[in-house]
Amino acid sequence: MDYQFADRMSKTPRSFIRETLKVTECPDIISFAGGLPNPTLFPVHELAQVAKDVISDEGAAVLQYATTEGYLPLREWVAERYSRRYDMSVSPDEILITHGSQQCLDLCGKIFIDKGTPVGIEEPGYLGAIQAFSLYEAGFVPVKLETDGPVLADVENAMKKKCRFFYGVPNSQNPSGLTWSESKRKDVADIIRIHDSVFVEDDAYGEIRFDGDVSKPVKKHIPDQVVMNGSFSKIITPGMRMGWVCAPEDVMNRLVTAKQATDLHSSILAQRIIFRYLSEYPIDSYIRKITETYRKQCGCMINVIKKEFPDSVSYTIPDGGMFLWVTLPQGCSSLDVFNKALEKKVAVLPGIPFYTQGGGENTIRLNFTNSSFEQIEEGIHRLSEVLNIITMK
Amino acid sequence: MDYQFADRMSKTPRSFIRETLKVTECPDIISFAGGLPNPTLFPVHELAQVAKDVISDEGAAVLQYATTEGYLPLREWVAERYSRRYDMSVSPDEILITHGSQQCLDLCGKIFIDKGTPVGIEEPGYLGAIQAFSLYEAGFVPVKLETDGPVLADVENAMKKKCRFFYGVPNSQNPSGLTWSESKRKDVADIIRIHDSVFVEDDAYGEIRFDGDVSKPVKKHIPDQVVMNGSFSKIITPGMRMGWVCAPEDVMNRLVTAKQATDLHSSILAQRIIFRYLSEYPIDSYIRKITETYRKQCGCMINVIKKEFPDSVSYTIPDGGMFLWVTLPQGCSSLDVFNKALEKKVAVLPGIPFYTQGGGENTIRLNFTNSSFEQIEEGIHRLSEVLNIITMK
Repeated sequence: MDYQFADRMSKTPRSFIRETLKVTECPDIISFAGGLPNPTLFPVHELAQVAKDVISDEGAAVLQYATTEGYLPLREWVAERYSRRYDMSVSPDEILITHGSQQCLDLCGKIFIDKGTPVGIEEPGYLGAIQAFSLYEAGFVPVKLETDGPVLADVENAMKKKCRFFYGVPNSQNPSGLTWSESKRKDVADIIRIHDSVFVEDDAYGEIRFDGDVSKPVKKHIPDQVVMNGSFSKIITPGMRMGWVCAPEDVMNRLVTAKQATDLHSSILAQRIIFRYLSEYPIDSYIRKITETYRKQCGCMINVIKKEFPDSVSYTIPDGGMFLWVTLPQGCSSLDVFNKALEKKVAVLPGIPFYTQGGGENTIRLNFTNSSFEQIEEGIHRLSEVLNIITMK
Repeated sequence: MDYQFADRMSKTPRSFIRETLKVTECPDIISFAGGLPNPTLFPVHELAQVAKDVISDEGAAVLQYATTEGYLPLREWVAERYSRRYDMSVSPDEILITHGSQQCLDLCGKIFIDKGTPVGIEEPGYLGAIQAFSLYEAGFVPVKLETDGPVLADVENAMKKKCRFFYGVPNSQNPSGLTWSESKRKDVADIIRIHDSVFVEDDAYGEIRFDGDVSKPVKKHIPDQVVMNGSFSKIITPGMRMGWVCAPEDVMNRLVTAKQATDLHSSILAQRIIFRYLSEYPIDSYIRKITETYRKQCGCMINVIKKEFPDSVSYTIPDGGMFLWVTLPQGCSSLDVFNKALEKKVAVLPGIPFYTQGGGENTIRLNFTNSSFEQIEEGIHRLSEVLNIITMK
């Protein structure tokens, strides 16, 4: 049978990550390739009790169809969190609960992107966003990242090319681990404002800050021109697929229409479990426990890297999030590193799929949150041996 | 701020149902307008215990990121169910777990529909499908429904217009309550086969059969040319948004790519809760309890209708599902009925939004599963008073 698929299916990159992760799933492999939170921190006991209590106490109310927008008390919690954390005034009406923050990207694609619509994206950019927007046949306009955020001339260029929105991850970006400076945030906001465009601000890692410092979201500068998302995946658990999107009214109306057509509404049971957990347990101290652990895991990785990586290899020093980014000398291939490291039972993720226009062949993403200190030390040690050989060639 | 939205957003009908339901949410209204399962039947106690046990026993495994395809034992359960119920041989590899069966419609839109792609759809057709496919800018080709299923000449016509697929609900359709006859299923399968097209077979109500009779799915006639979906919403609970899609390998590969870009994967916690519930409790006797209750609720509604509706008003007699369909004499307006009934604190759903090309102004959908026998008797009695006045004019 010769099926006729939509054009978009030929434009979507095969999921390199998915294919790669399959290779690296053997239990004897030390994997820095994935992007999993540290599962030893999940509040298992608390969630088990909360799940039971919510269903027992609320009965049919948490098992029936529910509103598309989401459970109001949870939306109020999110709005209140923006106020407390970012001193940003947001109404619960501006919050839609989604199946993970990934769904926000899908919905943004749906409401904003026609075939060929120019869309600005960081380079390297988050692969999940590249996949989501590719399915709406976006014409990507890359915006290079430097240490303190996007190259402003590239943002200007994206706006001149009439990008309907620019997508970025200002806090502890996936894949680079970079965080935009305060001044870059303001400058990008100014450019977006002048060009009447929109910024899609992915804040999946905003709560995972190693030193506690909190930068002002771009949304705070230009609230009407930013669609911002957030996630419970990094601060409670990813398994329930719970996130949200925060958007101004006109955009929210379209997002709700798109959400309804996509899956009617987000699991009301999951929403009620999350809300009750947030009500009964001190989320701030739990988040501190996560960030403190990730800070140590990241520190452990950086320490071994400093000692053992060849001088010609550079790397980012994250101040939050789950990833750091390694750049090999020009001409060195991350695919070679991938293959050689795998022989030593270490998995890394070549950076190529994070580039929409080719390039990045000499880059690697490393995840530090899903390995023990011993695994990090041993894994980076083995990786260093590979890098020492490959950079010598 | 003047946002630039994608073309598709201007083509999507405002959700008539959503707007309508808002009016009808007052607790003193007897509502036949919605589409809710009977919440008094939800297995609240069982699910509370199962939810706690799954999290306590499995810990991180049910809270971490998971595979896009879904939890293998649950996919095996679905495959096995097809074998037992429909004597149909399906591999677990052909099953993808989705966030409700609505998400299957979104994913089908994503992988099959380009701007203007002709898509065949029953008339009247399921509103959720109309909304999902509209967002991919489908060009709808209506296929009229008669008592025993689609008008075959209309199916032929849809194929001649090169419909990439034809979408239908052969069992106890939403909104009409009609079920396709065995011969219509075979005839439609033959037409689809000859034209190398695809049938998207929505089987959300396949388990809810009042007399226990089970018809052969269209997929059984032409397995490689059917994408079939199913849902746990009608047989366990809709609140967790759990459904699935069953498709041949080539289609499944695209569906998985699309699913990953949409929301990575379906809630693993919900999947594990559903699977454990299915393992620990006798689902067949629970489904019998649901169907027996719905059969009585439907019977109650039909009894009052028979006694009190004017003779000029016709209606379907469902053999399953959750809805029946009322047709007023030509020239009578269901919007008038809606407004007049609302004055009497009864809510019905005008059939207009189930038509993609206009029409249906004299049709009404009635839901019988979310009202008590007393409410059904009293509500239909009041509705009859309205119909007697309106059809007299």
